[in-house]
Amino acid sequence: MKPLPFTKVRVTDPDWTRRIDLVRTVVLPYQWEILNDRVDGAEKSYCVRNFRAAAGDIKAPHGGMVFQDSDLYKWLEAVAYTLAVHRDEALEKLADEAVELIVHAQEEDGYLNTYYSLMKPQKRYTNLMEGHELYCAGHMIEAAVAYDQATGKDRLLQAALRLARHLHGYFMPRRGYPGHPEVELALIKLYEHTGDAGSLELAHHLIDVRGAGENQLDLERKDPDHDWIWEPMKRFDDQYFQAHQPVREQKTAEGHAVRAMYLYSAMADAARLGGDKALRDACLALADNMRTRRLYVTGGIGSASFGERFTTDYDLPNDSMYCETCASIGLMLFARRMSWLTGDPRYFDLWERALNNTVLAGMGEDGKHFFYVNPLEVRPDAIRWNMTYEHVKPVRQSWFGVACCPPNIARTLPSLSGSLYARSKGALHVLSHIASQFEDEGLRVELRRSGEDYTLAVDGPALELHLRVPEGSELTATDGQAEVGRHIFRHPGGEQTYRYRLRPRLRVVRANPKVAANAGKVCVMRGLDVYCLEEKDNGPWLSGLCLKEGSLPREVPGQTMDGLPVLEAEGLRMADSGYEDSLYADLKPAYQPVTLRFVPYRAWGNRGAGEMTVWVNSLH
Amino acid sequence: MKPLPFTKVRVTDPDWTRRIDLVRTVVLPYQWEILNDRVDGAEKSYCVRNFRAAAGDIKAPHGGMVFQDSDLYKWLEAVAYTLAVHRDEALEKLADEAVELIVHAQEEDGYLNTYYSLMKPQKRYTNLMEGHELYCAGHMIEAAVAYDQATGKDRLLQAALRLARHLHGYFMPRRGYPGHPEVELALIKLYEHTGDAGSLELAHHLIDVRGAGENQLDLERKDPDHDWIWEPMKRFDDQYFQAHQPVREQKTAEGHAVRAMYLYSAMADAARLGGDKALRDACLALADNMRTRRLYVTGGIGSASFGERFTTDYDLPNDSMYCETCASIGLMLFARRMSWLTGDPRYFDLWERALNNTVLAGMGEDGKHFFYVNPLEVRPDAIRWNMTYEHVKPVRQSWFGVACCPPNIARTLPSLSGSLYARSKGALHVLSHIASQFEDEGLRVELRRSGEDYTLAVDGPALELHLRVPEGSELTATDGQAEVGRHIFRHPGGEQTYRYRLRPRLRVVRANPKVAANAGKVCVMRGLDVYCLEEKDNGPWLSGLCLKEGSLPREVPGQTMDGLPVLEAEGLRMADSGYEDSLYADLKPAYQPVTLRFVPYRAWGNRGAGEMTVWVNSLH
Repeated sequence: MKPLPFTKVRVTDPDWTRRIDLVRTVVLPYQWEILNDRVDGAEKSYCVRNFRAAAGDIKAPHGGMVFQDSDLYKWLEAVAYTLAVHRDEALEKLADEAVELIVHAQEEDGYLNTYYSLMKPQKRYTNLMEGHELYCAGHMIEAAVAYDQATGKDRLLQAALRLARHLHGYFMPRRGYPGHPEVELALIKLYEHTGDAGSLELAHHLIDVRGAGENQLDLERKDPDHDWIWEPMKRFDDQYFQAHQPVREQKTAEGHAVRAMYLYSAMADAARLGGDKALRDACLALADNMRTRRLYVTGGIGSASFGERFTTDYDLPNDSMYCETCASIGLMLFARRMSWLTGDPRYFDLWERALNNTVLAGMGEDGKHFFYVNPLEVRPDAIRWNMTYEHVKPVRQSWFGVACCPPNIARTLPSLSGSLYARSKGALHVLSHIASQFEDEGLRVELRRSGEDYTLAVDGPALELHLRVPEGSELTATDGQAEVGRHIFRHPGGEQTYRYRLRPRLRVVRANPKVAANAGKVCVMRGLDVYCLEEKDNGPWLSGLCLKEGSLPREVPGQTMDGLPVLEAEGLRMADSGYEDSLYADLKPAYQPVTLRFVPYRAWGNRGAGEMTVWVNSLH
Repeated sequence: MKPLPFTKVRVTDPDWTRRIDLVRTVVLPYQWEILNDRVDGAEKSYCVRNFRAAAGDIKAPHGGMVFQDSDLYKWLEAVAYTLAVHRDEALEKLADEAVELIVHAQEEDGYLNTYYSLMKPQKRYTNLMEGHELYCAGHMIEAAVAYDQATGKDRLLQAALRLARHLHGYFMPRRGYPGHPEVELALIKLYEHTGDAGSLELAHHLIDVRGAGENQLDLERKDPDHDWIWEPMKRFDDQYFQAHQPVREQKTAEGHAVRAMYLYSAMADAARLGGDKALRDACLALADNMRTRRLYVTGGIGSASFGERFTTDYDLPNDSMYCETCASIGLMLFARRMSWLTGDPRYFDLWERALNNTVLAGMGEDGKHFFYVNPLEVRPDAIRWNMTYEHVKPVRQSWFGVACCPPNIARTLPSLSGSLYARSKGALHVLSHIASQFEDEGLRVELRRSGEDYTLAVDGPALELHLRVPEGSELTATDGQAEVGRHIFRHPGGEQTYRYRLRPRLRVVRANPKVAANAGKVCVMRGLDVYCLEEKDNGPWLSGLCLKEGSLPREVPGQTMDGLPVLEAEGLRMADSGYEDSLYADLKPAYQPVTLRFVPYRAWGNRGAGEMTVWVNSLH
């Protein structure tokens, strides 16, 4: 299965173009101001200043985190995808400026990192565990490839190739790998775009050396004089870095969730390109473990705040988890690669679950407020007083010092077009039913949507049209045409239109009973879209509410939120009379009937701080 | 209501004398070895060494925590109560040695603290927030009073009076108070035992100055040169220290749970002695807030690990809480004082809840292993990998560096005799139905128990006998005698025997529905004794088990654990078939009937590491 690149496909669905336009008109200009430290009240980024200093334009020390460079690269990558959708001259001018800055900040031998260039030029690659040089390099390479693809301008791509050659020269003879994966998948992207064989070779090397015998990171950790950047890192184990085993032996999703997703994404790419069965099997096992044991219903991952990491099977607390937006973006990256690797479109259920819930929830309606942590249960008073929930916020926050998530969302939304279609021998796969169009090698396709009714207009040679059926939805051909298999149309060639209906089911979902946090509870979903209760609609003390077993939610006519219908269902509120004098009593519980109002999870927290819960008690 | 002192009452109930004997024969000798650093494998205490160094016997720096002295004082207090029960010459000899050490470590002006004497003699009372000098002084005074009461030896009591006079001279003219309350209740105890008016005056002063305008602790915190002992303290707020308001205005239980209990205990004493209505009202409000909103069903308190503290109303997570053993011991101290203050015996329900569940659970059967943190839900794999639960242990631990809990349990068990009876005008109150006997001012009483049948033999002048009915139990007179009111016998004078039956009900208890953690769940209790499910009896994945609504637990004939019957009930196990391929599914849940086996919470974790839960899903 070979994906159609983002450059060829154009999203036309108004719900999605609205978001993509928001990125172009608000998010990216706003983030540019942020990166230039020109937004009052926001934490200083120093990002552009660091590049200007490294380029020799100004004299200044490095500011911000050691991985601050990556914010500019992610911004630039987002601009590239955006420009492919909509030629915006002003934005392109800013991007060209950024490219020049980066090119000038690069050292003569290809090395590129403002923190080390400015602060510790003699210490390059001495702190692979924490230094993030390779992580930043990876984001630079991704930006360069995207910018070349989108604009045809290869100035940054040439810099990326110089950087890749420099990395190849340094790392191929050594047993080191990045503390934070990212460069691996970027190098493979660079190889796929340019054919640069050294990049692929280095990616394989960095993947293979991880967790396989003594390496530089072990030595750094044992070194009593190691120059630690973050004290807590001392407590992190090999699992945190996905370095507890050689990657081909890893069967469970472990450690820092973003790191894991970026590594697994590279592994899936490497397995696909190298036909590496052991690596492919590891990817299958990791994806399975995550999907069946370590995944939140919202597509969130990372059950613990300390280490922002996976913990153990079925440990999925709803209120103390991390569920970083970036981790769900990483899950999208991994999931789509798993479909490309295996030809199985069902991995796009993971992709869609992560995108439609956690990733979309990550950015507010205004494009300027963000969730880094995406809880499934929030009680604002508890968050305030109980440090177990300290990292959880009841409303979206403005820019942070560690600003990984906002630019990551910004690059994700305009790049969606690269995940909608794929081709395999004699077949076109419709992986996501986002209205869109493309033209590729004599094939012209346009997917239109009207409510739940879709029209797929195809013009081109004979092929099969494989329509993915998202989990929780029903897909039926609606005009009795050439449906030749389950959700496969045979296109005989020429110009033809196919009609189908895709109906997301309103569902009351339970978790595997091994998940202690969800015992006795249900989650209301519509297809893969998760719903939640908010205090704003249902009053305080959401924990006293129950959905009546057998009560199916219904759409409230005419009421939508963030493009999805608002839902209602019959429920009960457990009375708290009898508990005035004691917290605990052996009373027969009493219930009052109430109407529960469910809103899309992705739209939660947009109406002020209040309680929220995804999982709702169920009463028989 | 005036309690009968521990010196007069003798516990005879075999279940309790077994524990009290364990303290005498195992716990105290073992802890003496620990305090002397003679136990292989245990973390070093340095406690006795510190005193020897401060006394000038050896040269050594201070070792261990700044509050290490308190371990010896608590040990000595425990010995005192133990000697009152059982004259043990060997133990008394050790105690006399300890007394000599302490007396010699005291400075000429009455000051006593080995940390400051050895390490920072010029820095006395410069770190009231963290230094624990007053905390240690309080435990010294408590030990001294108890040792004099138990043995009639007043050498330590004289030292305590010198210390109290020194404290009076230093603190009366100043606006400082201890970061950790304890000295307040100790000074009141000293006053009640000796009549030393200055001690009472100082206790009032230290209570009144807390939270009331600028004071030394504020200045310490603002001082950029403050010599911090614990970095995390910097993040603690006024609530942590119960200093957010003048104590008479405090209406909610806040901050570090042990600190809160020790302070509230002193407040209750001060209100009783001073007839201070505002202080009494504050105590009533604090006890109410805790009992109706911030108390675990096990009598545990402290919902958060960070700060070991109260958080907010109804925030009672079962797996990430703190519920320190010492905090429940503190709750016992506060609760009994509330009964003495108000004459209302129902505060002993709190006392009994804390004692029978969390405090007894705190020590293992062998007297050498302890829980500091008392969870209501444990999944050992999650504890291992998710740092949210890092402080929770699935089995009892041996001695810790911060060894507050073990000696606190050791002093609590032999001192129980002081909480069993109280007298008020014309009445004797039986507050706890632990078989025991006493003789006091011409009144001889013996309470005997056989199963649920009690005999109260009274010999003495006419009075009313008020029998407390513990929450969750039924009390009925069994031979139709002079019951003149609800659970009141009128004793006409002379020798008479009264019979009653006290039957703890098997109960299925729910929490106020505002407690999110317990929604849809029930707790099985027998009277005030909490039961739990353990993996050992019920297999793994306890979260998949449900108690059938209406299924009442029953005693398993002939099977007991830690003196209580083992219980069984009809339950269901939710099948996890259908969840192999996905963690989430809209399946109709399937159940298999199972027999649930409940064991007393206080005996959990004695059979190896495994899952445990107090709150069990309930299915209608």
